[in-house]
Amino acid sequence: MFQFIRVNMADLSVKTEDIPKEYEGLGGRGLTSAILAKEVEPTCSAIGPNNKLIFAPGLLGGTNCANSGRISVGAKSPLTGGIKEANSGGQAGQYLARLGIAAIVLEGLPQDGKLYKLWVGKDKYELSPAEDLKGLGNYATIDRLREQFGGKAGFISIGQAGEWKLAGASVAFTDKEGRPTRHAGRGGLGAVMGSKGLKAIIIDPTGGEIAPIKDKEAFNQAAKRFAKALQEHPVTSQGLPTYGTDILINIINEAGGLPTRNFSSGRFEGADKVSGETLNKITAERKGNPTHGCMSGCVIRCSGIFVDKNGQYVSKWPEYETVWAWGPNCGIDDLDAIARIDRACDDIGVDTIEIGNAVAVAMEGGLKAFGDAAGVEELIAEVGKGTPLGRILGSGAGLVGKVFGVHRVPVVKNQALPAYDPRAVKGVGVTYATSPMGADHTAGYAVATNIMNVGGQVDPLKSEGQVELSSSLQAVTAFIDTAGLCLFVAFPVMDIPDAFAAIVDMVNAKYGLNLTSDDVNTLGKRVLGMEKDFNRRAGFTSLDDRLPEFFRTEKLPPHNTVFDVPDADLDSVLDFDS
Amino acid sequence: MFQFIRVNMADLSVKTEDIPKEYEGLGGRGLTSAILAKEVEPTCSAIGPNNKLIFAPGLLGGTNCANSGRISVGAKSPLTGGIKEANSGGQAGQYLARLGIAAIVLEGLPQDGKLYKLWVGKDKYELSPAEDLKGLGNYATIDRLREQFGGKAGFISIGQAGEWKLAGASVAFTDKEGRPTRHAGRGGLGAVMGSKGLKAIIIDPTGGEIAPIKDKEAFNQAAKRFAKALQEHPVTSQGLPTYGTDILINIINEAGGLPTRNFSSGRFEGADKVSGETLNKITAERKGNPTHGCMSGCVIRCSGIFVDKNGQYVSKWPEYETVWAWGPNCGIDDLDAIARIDRACDDIGVDTIEIGNAVAVAMEGGLKAFGDAAGVEELIAEVGKGTPLGRILGSGAGLVGKVFGVHRVPVVKNQALPAYDPRAVKGVGVTYATSPMGADHTAGYAVATNIMNVGGQVDPLKSEGQVELSSSLQAVTAFIDTAGLCLFVAFPVMDIPDAFAAIVDMVNAKYGLNLTSDDVNTLGKRVLGMEKDFNRRAGFTSLDDRLPEFFRTEKLPPHNTVFDVPDADLDSVLDFDS
Repeated sequence: MFQFIRVNMADLSVKTEDIPKEYEGLGGRGLTSAILAKEVEPTCSAIGPNNKLIFAPGLLGGTNCANSGRISVGAKSPLTGGIKEANSGGQAGQYLARLGIAAIVLEGLPQDGKLYKLWVGKDKYELSPAEDLKGLGNYATIDRLREQFGGKAGFISIGQAGEWKLAGASVAFTDKEGRPTRHAGRGGLGAVMGSKGLKAIIIDPTGGEIAPIKDKEAFNQAAKRFAKALQEHPVTSQGLPTYGTDILINIINEAGGLPTRNFSSGRFEGADKVSGETLNKITAERKGNPTHGCMSGCVIRCSGIFVDKNGQYVSKWPEYETVWAWGPNCGIDDLDAIARIDRACDDIGVDTIEIGNAVAVAMEGGLKAFGDAAGVEELIAEVGKGTPLGRILGSGAGLVGKVFGVHRVPVVKNQALPAYDPRAVKGVGVTYATSPMGADHTAGYAVATNIMNVGGQVDPLKSEGQVELSSSLQAVTAFIDTAGLCLFVAFPVMDIPDAFAAIVDMVNAKYGLNLTSDDVNTLGKRVLGMEKDFNRRAGFTSLDDRLPEFFRTEKLPPHNTVFDVPDADLDSVLDFDS
Repeated sequence: MFQFIRVNMADLSVKTEDIPKEYEGLGGRGLTSAILAKEVEPTCSAIGPNNKLIFAPGLLGGTNCANSGRISVGAKSPLTGGIKEANSGGQAGQYLARLGIAAIVLEGLPQDGKLYKLWVGKDKYELSPAEDLKGLGNYATIDRLREQFGGKAGFISIGQAGEWKLAGASVAFTDKEGRPTRHAGRGGLGAVMGSKGLKAIIIDPTGGEIAPIKDKEAFNQAAKRFAKALQEHPVTSQGLPTYGTDILINIINEAGGLPTRNFSSGRFEGADKVSGETLNKITAERKGNPTHGCMSGCVIRCSGIFVDKNGQYVSKWPEYETVWAWGPNCGIDDLDAIARIDRACDDIGVDTIEIGNAVAVAMEGGLKAFGDAAGVEELIAEVGKGTPLGRILGSGAGLVGKVFGVHRVPVVKNQALPAYDPRAVKGVGVTYATSPMGADHTAGYAVATNIMNVGGQVDPLKSEGQVELSSSLQAVTAFIDTAGLCLFVAFPVMDIPDAFAAIVDMVNAKYGLNLTSDDVNTLGKRVLGMEKDFNRRAGFTSLDDRLPEFFRTEKLPPHNTVFDVPDADLDSVLDFDS
């Protein structure tokens, strides 16, 4: 029986309940957003007693569907002040789904201000003190928990940044080998977990089983068609497995959209040194692992293991956005330094996109010189120590701009922009501006069509066609996030019609439904509608759906373009009713 | 001829122009808000190139009218993100008005990032480098400028906080003796001045003359009636001159509305030690000056000179809100420490209300213990040095809450609440919530009626009547701020009908008009309407017109009341059209 687990930190009670009727048919992002929309007052303090933190596997979680093990985390965001869902790989999504748990809902604040941990097993749970984990990073936390609970468990945890309730704090999830390298990074969800005094969740998968499926035969056939599409599309079968997401460095640099030195150029002279090709090459030379899946059931395996010159583990392969954030955007071309910084961010528990932007903005404010890799490593150490400077940086780019008096601050809804300059990749600029999540490439990855010609062609430098592109991508992405699928399935979905049909067929077969593609799109739009409405009730207006002014006034080399999608067009992106 | 001086820092040009037609009939706040509403895009970066900083004496500036020398400073606020006017005493208002200058409008950002100063005399001006003043506090800045320009000039300057563009930075104005003790404190206007690279304005009054008056006889008669009212009302003739604004400590403490230890109680056990009575007593004992006017033409003289145990000058008498911010709200009962902190804040150039709240929030976050006066003096030193911790504190209470993970943060529109708890003085709570300026007691001082029975009686603990009270006070205050009058004239104005009539008569006599009291009220409403509209265009909604949630949920001792004015009533406060 799929269940909700409700943990009330105010009285340290844990209760289970059947899935409330109004949430049926939802999972992942659809479920976290629906619970927030119904149960959380949008004007509440994000780190106060009235916010809730929700963990939910997707609709296809717990099945044999490839790449279906993502876990959504939702809350009112301490960073944006709006609704937030961030999802992650790692083992927790599949484990929870196989234990029959549809959602863990964290409520209230602990009266004693102390730390706790939640253990969840088959039909069992226990909330217990965790003061011994206080002040530990994610790596040390997991080491400690593994001693107690064994290596089979899946772990969810926060590092020091979450304990300190910093708006850049992430929630960490362990990968197949038990390393806390997968993160629900964006929007400060780790701060919400920290405010609630929950240091970790331990999920014992023992006794878990494949989720119940109404029509197993139909499901398995559709799952095979889906896996076939993933294994046929060149992006998911060749590019990502070989070079990781970092393959994008050379591609986006060539397109002139690689934000360099706090979004002041679209090309970085040191791009080749931090590219996916170089990452792959040095990993092979050092006998690291260039092909690694971040969660069970992944057939893309875009990750890898980064080892140092002595062959010692440093981190998982840093993602493209991480390499960009610490590389080109800080003027740094040293992959080893970037991997160490990535490891430190995973350990402290901060979002690399947010904190990388924060450091770049601080560099513009004169704190360090662009290109000073050793200086950045010192700054990350400050974050880990929780010094005042570290807390500033851990609070994100918007706050850094205020503290250091910088007015070129690349944020939307106070969330920092990812690794694609919106002046040279205008479709993703539309997504940054209009997503209820704040600036988020994963909310509608128009880069695919703008730059890679996946799903058609829309000129990245022109404003025409971007609104339609972002609009349709945001809707289908809201569904993909609701299904619990890895976003990279979007590449085959956009090019191979049967890939999307197979997903719909799997949902129908699992739940005994007769949804069409249109229905599924409608579900995505419904989720977006709930999210936009939450934000409206939190005080957001259409003016929050705008890029910072400098993207409209400063030309970006080398194309010397500005972001010029009209405001009225931005207002139409998620206006599905009219 | 009254003139506008426009300074464009981008090309270092200075131009004069006649008062543009659309701004005629406006002065002070009415003028700064009208210019902002027309000329500044409300979504711009407050410290970016498109904001403007405006200085304007009031409609009655440059005359013999008592207490008419206030100067308004306006800009988009780096603290609130909305429109901002803060006004100050000191000499600059009268001097500018007598030189025939209706407004100084600062535009653009300097290309070279360097510091400049503006000298203004009779029909002359000069913009020149001021790099030699870089990093100096206001006291040292004025010492240096006085050597160069002589002691007769009026000075406007920023301290280090303004140079660093901190959102708590003030703009300083020199008093009659040339001390930088009067500040346009609220909303971070010093940061806007700093962003524009203007360290100081020097106003040479030589050749200035009484502003032209159409009907001198009528004016002089009305001015006499007005001065008489000021000299008759007990608040302006006895309470304020004798004890300063700090007379309010015992009054507000008795009323149970003195916010103590970050708004957790309405009574402070050490109130007597920091009261106006004690301030008066130790000033007399130490042979300081207990009665001092902050500007020429003041007949109230509520200020004083605070000297230490050796009779040495420390600061002007700290205002009630300053004593409160560093005293009860930080749990401190040491007037000497408070005066030193006040002096340091004047020197660094920060708003004592904002930074006092920032420190109290940091204390709640564990940075220092409540009551640790030495610790607070250390923190102020950090602000002056511009360390990361100092910059955090100098950025205001809202930002401190984010950095230190505190959810009880007393701000409206991100501006910190002044010295009256809105749960025990509900009329001022309505003003805090609804003023376009953010939490600001001066925008509609309902304390007068709630606590002192000036202008009638409205029970401070009940929600009834507060909306009407705040609404009418905000309108008349917008006019008083437009006239350039000290807000304390409101005490006689509220109790003595002829005092208000005299003000209207003076405006009519000066400009040859036939305004009625109603017209003047309409002008105040028009100013508020422009301000609200600016904020709407900056993205504000009715949800920004709310107190933080804890004022509605946490009961305030000793009355154990919460703020319970209904939201719908708050929405009606400035809705003058319906």
